[in-house]
Amino acid sequence: MPDKFLDLATLRFLLYDVHQLEAILSLPDFSEYDAESANMIIQSVVDFSQRELAPYYKEMDTDPARFENGTIRVHPAVSGYLKKCGELGLLAGPLDHDSGGMQLPFLLVTTYMYIQEISNNHMPGYAGLTFGASELLVHYASEEIKERFVPKMLTGEWGGTMCLTEPQAGSSLSDILAEAKTDGDSYLLSGQKIFISGGDYQGIENIVHLVLARIEGAPAGTKGISLFVVPKFISQPNGSLEFNDVNTIGDFQKLGQRGFCTAHLSFGDQGNCRGWLVGEPNQGLRYMFQMMNGARIATGRGAAAISMAAYQASLAYARERPQGRSLTEAGKKDASKGQTLIINHADVKRMLLRQKVIAEGGLSLILLSARYHDLSRSHQDEQKRNEYGLLLDILTPVAKTYPAEKGIDSVSAGLQVLGGYGFCEDYILQQYYRDIRIFSIYEGTTGIQSQDLLGRKMTMENGRAFALLSMEIEKTIKNAEDGDLSPMGEKLAEGLATAGKVKDYLMKFADAGEYDRFLADATLVMELMGVLVVGWQWLEMGLKSQDALAGNQKYEESFYRAKLHALDYYYLYEMPAISRHAETLLNNEGITTREANSLFP
Amino acid sequence: MPDKFLDLATLRFLLYDVHQLEAILSLPDFSEYDAESANMIIQSVVDFSQRELAPYYKEMDTDPARFENGTIRVHPAVSGYLKKCGELGLLAGPLDHDSGGMQLPFLLVTTYMYIQEISNNHMPGYAGLTFGASELLVHYASEEIKERFVPKMLTGEWGGTMCLTEPQAGSSLSDILAEAKTDGDSYLLSGQKIFISGGDYQGIENIVHLVLARIEGAPAGTKGISLFVVPKFISQPNGSLEFNDVNTIGDFQKLGQRGFCTAHLSFGDQGNCRGWLVGEPNQGLRYMFQMMNGARIATGRGAAAISMAAYQASLAYARERPQGRSLTEAGKKDASKGQTLIINHADVKRMLLRQKVIAEGGLSLILLSARYHDLSRSHQDEQKRNEYGLLLDILTPVAKTYPAEKGIDSVSAGLQVLGGYGFCEDYILQQYYRDIRIFSIYEGTTGIQSQDLLGRKMTMENGRAFALLSMEIEKTIKNAEDGDLSPMGEKLAEGLATAGKVKDYLMKFADAGEYDRFLADATLVMELMGVLVVGWQWLEMGLKSQDALAGNQKYEESFYRAKLHALDYYYLYEMPAISRHAETLLNNEGITTREANSLFP
Repeated sequence: MPDKFLDLATLRFLLYDVHQLEAILSLPDFSEYDAESANMIIQSVVDFSQRELAPYYKEMDTDPARFENGTIRVHPAVSGYLKKCGELGLLAGPLDHDSGGMQLPFLLVTTYMYIQEISNNHMPGYAGLTFGASELLVHYASEEIKERFVPKMLTGEWGGTMCLTEPQAGSSLSDILAEAKTDGDSYLLSGQKIFISGGDYQGIENIVHLVLARIEGAPAGTKGISLFVVPKFISQPNGSLEFNDVNTIGDFQKLGQRGFCTAHLSFGDQGNCRGWLVGEPNQGLRYMFQMMNGARIATGRGAAAISMAAYQASLAYARERPQGRSLTEAGKKDASKGQTLIINHADVKRMLLRQKVIAEGGLSLILLSARYHDLSRSHQDEQKRNEYGLLLDILTPVAKTYPAEKGIDSVSAGLQVLGGYGFCEDYILQQYYRDIRIFSIYEGTTGIQSQDLLGRKMTMENGRAFALLSMEIEKTIKNAEDGDLSPMGEKLAEGLATAGKVKDYLMKFADAGEYDRFLADATLVMELMGVLVVGWQWLEMGLKSQDALAGNQKYEESFYRAKLHALDYYYLYEMPAISRHAETLLNNEGITTREANSLFP
Repeated sequence: MPDKFLDLATLRFLLYDVHQLEAILSLPDFSEYDAESANMIIQSVVDFSQRELAPYYKEMDTDPARFENGTIRVHPAVSGYLKKCGELGLLAGPLDHDSGGMQLPFLLVTTYMYIQEISNNHMPGYAGLTFGASELLVHYASEEIKERFVPKMLTGEWGGTMCLTEPQAGSSLSDILAEAKTDGDSYLLSGQKIFISGGDYQGIENIVHLVLARIEGAPAGTKGISLFVVPKFISQPNGSLEFNDVNTIGDFQKLGQRGFCTAHLSFGDQGNCRGWLVGEPNQGLRYMFQMMNGARIATGRGAAAISMAAYQASLAYARERPQGRSLTEAGKKDASKGQTLIINHADVKRMLLRQKVIAEGGLSLILLSARYHDLSRSHQDEQKRNEYGLLLDILTPVAKTYPAEKGIDSVSAGLQVLGGYGFCEDYILQQYYRDIRIFSIYEGTTGIQSQDLLGRKMTMENGRAFALLSMEIEKTIKNAEDGDLSPMGEKLAEGLATAGKVKDYLMKFADAGEYDRFLADATLVMELMGVLVVGWQWLEMGLKSQDALAGNQKYEESFYRAKLHALDYYYLYEMPAISRHAETLLNNEGITTREANSLFP
């Protein structure tokens, strides 16, 4: 199944030709890896996904994770999956050698998670949270805590979670109420957490929760939030596990990702829930958000994977399904002729092209972010590390949002390709359609990402991140200057100029202290920026395809030609969204800052 | 429940002030009705929907219709519902007195179906198909056939269906294979039909199928298709019912509308399935398509109803849910203050406004179509009837498509308002999100509607329908000329000019015999036209609101002011889609007419 849904040639083209994995592997941090070992990892994950993930994708939906007898019943393959990930080293991939990790570039970790998510987007969440939590412990916890928890997490024996959201607070983390009372060298935790992905499930020995809570007497708001490690069971000196008063009191039945359990946890119902402080008091949010950047790219990655899987499924259907006729030269249909395949209808091709540019463009954006992540940590020049860090900062909310939001449109187009069958449970498109809908909510909604992009990232350090991003885009425009793709280069330059104009226009509201109005249309700025940077990615893919056609072709000529067709499509059909949104943004009337009572009496 | 989801003031405003129901009621065909009787009908359907529909909406989803023991088990309320509709006269509403009907204007029938669909969009489909089928029989069948079937359908004792689609043909009706062999004064039918809504269910005495099939030896293609009435059971002289070899061999489990059963039927497995020809041989498609126009408006109506119900649900949530804080004058959040309601966040207001303009604008478009339908049949001047017929023709594909396509975006925005809760089954938004997805597939997909709009309706009679529509829009522009709304009038005029330019530009391809290229972007033309005509509707609503504010206010001042705010929103945020699509359409490069193999190697 992953063979069917994964376009390995496109993945390799993006990885090696567009995003230059080999240049990343040549950095000292990754010196033990080369293209050959990278390919072996990729191939082993393809095989693993085909064997251990794809077969359960539909089952995990039709027989969803469900709260029963105080815990959550999940697909029996879940606990086995986590241990197999441990055996393959997939949980230790991103950690460095000193922490027991494989010290792989994030670009490669991103790739192997993506391959899994294409096969089955429910299952890899269990692994992603486990290594996310272990990474956080490795970075911020004491040696003693690390030793107690991390090794079992890297083997997949224990799972991990992030516990942020509370019922009364939702996205507003400053309103967290969970409390920690000091008690010797540890703390007693109490409070409830909701929407805890992988929060509890049968078949796993222990779950290590990373919990945001307030130490008694901490300042109000985000400044008083600390991070605790709170295992479901505490290891005793004799090796046995003792229940730590972490109670699963319910779960959430969802529209999609129904095999990826979502728990409602209650800590300390009996007053016996013990946690250990990670790092310094009141620094919890900072630690968590360092993690959240990775989690945001991972969210975009999951959405990009679903878009790709849906695209491949729609494409396969369109190639097999006969229906209707092409028009004759007289503009009529000839009923005496046989039916044509639906892939020959222009409107079906349009929908498939839309799927393709979003799926492949979104993937390119994710891989670019992962590359910036690697360069921001492992480049040998400190100034460069700093610059790549800023590029990563500004790109992260976009990389989270574009694949999530456009992915909804893309999968919807894919469902439409199948007509009435697309709406039926016998076909997989409807599952992708449900699954992808969560990605614009996970890890900070699109509204929150957009506030982050406009309110922080585009303006940070006097607009330096935006200036650096502009310079990167201008390099591509420059490369397109004299060739066949120069019209695209010009359009991209126009789009970039428009983005700058919008930023400057909106900044005036901030300068005048009208913050509400400055940020009111942040979501449209996000849409504009998403279309722009993916347009940049497509021009890069086009240039690389042209280079290959002129010289060294690793793939069939038709492979590169198809990329150039998709580039044509993107610039004619998708890029006009930039001027559309600018038309709204540059005429800010403050409509959405009017009183709610007057808008909705 | 419908009280909560139905905005009765807006419905009345649209019905009486914008679409002038009283002028329709003053036509001789409807002389027995006036505003008072219309209001009584509306109120009785509101009560009925609250009592008989709303309580089952969620149940019909969680315990869906399902094929069991050769028939389909549905919610027990279904058969009772149909009979209650019969008692209330809702099945006989659109038929004229001579046929046992109530001779209500279609505008009022549309209204009472809409009210039901707001409460529960699964159930009214059973009624809609039954009266659609009976209406078709009344128009085209012999007196004898009418007498045998129609009375039982009007009481709701028997259901009705339309059987078009076959497994191998899908939307391509010219490829229908179902066969009819003459046998005395009737025919023996054989063949399979899929996606038959309301095709078979427990608790109903009989179901009357209207089946498209070929008489032996009929010409190939659409010219050889005839229409047959094929009951599941045949009434015997002694009053008993005898099985007519109409077999239910399966059903379709779906993403949404799960309480509205969808059957796979097989006719004549034992060679004993008898049908009677409706009208003339080989005219079946013409008859069916006369019905389909009504069905298309009904489809748009159902989508508009779901958008409205979802909007009301999101609005109610946003008014109750505290989360986050407004920014202080220094652009910061003050954690010592209490949380604000989410309706006070600009991005939430933006999403709610988007829901509102689509839900109310879509409804206005539906009511306008229904009004044109009435005027095309009941206006006393024949030339006017003809003109309104053309207006109805050109508007029908748009009225079907705009609420369906934009409704998906609208409900998705509504789900996003609820954040993580929107994705959970405890909240109703996820059901609306699933339910609405079928409406761009039902009764001719968006692609097919778009080909109809551009390929037939915009060009028919030398563009006369388009010219008439332009004149209607220009009247509204003229009315806005000197007041506060003149900037909107100017934008609407620009949009209309753009639509004309696009039409003329694309027609050149048709004139040159490049039909593929002419129609390749029809779906974008549809999007453009949808935004344009709904923009026209919003300007109409704005003008009527201004009139009321200047004089006779039936509702609170805030009601009209809110309509004007929504108008502002529409023109700033939605209208720019027109120039966006024009940018693509006016630069037709024929990308989607390139060979499928080159685009997708």
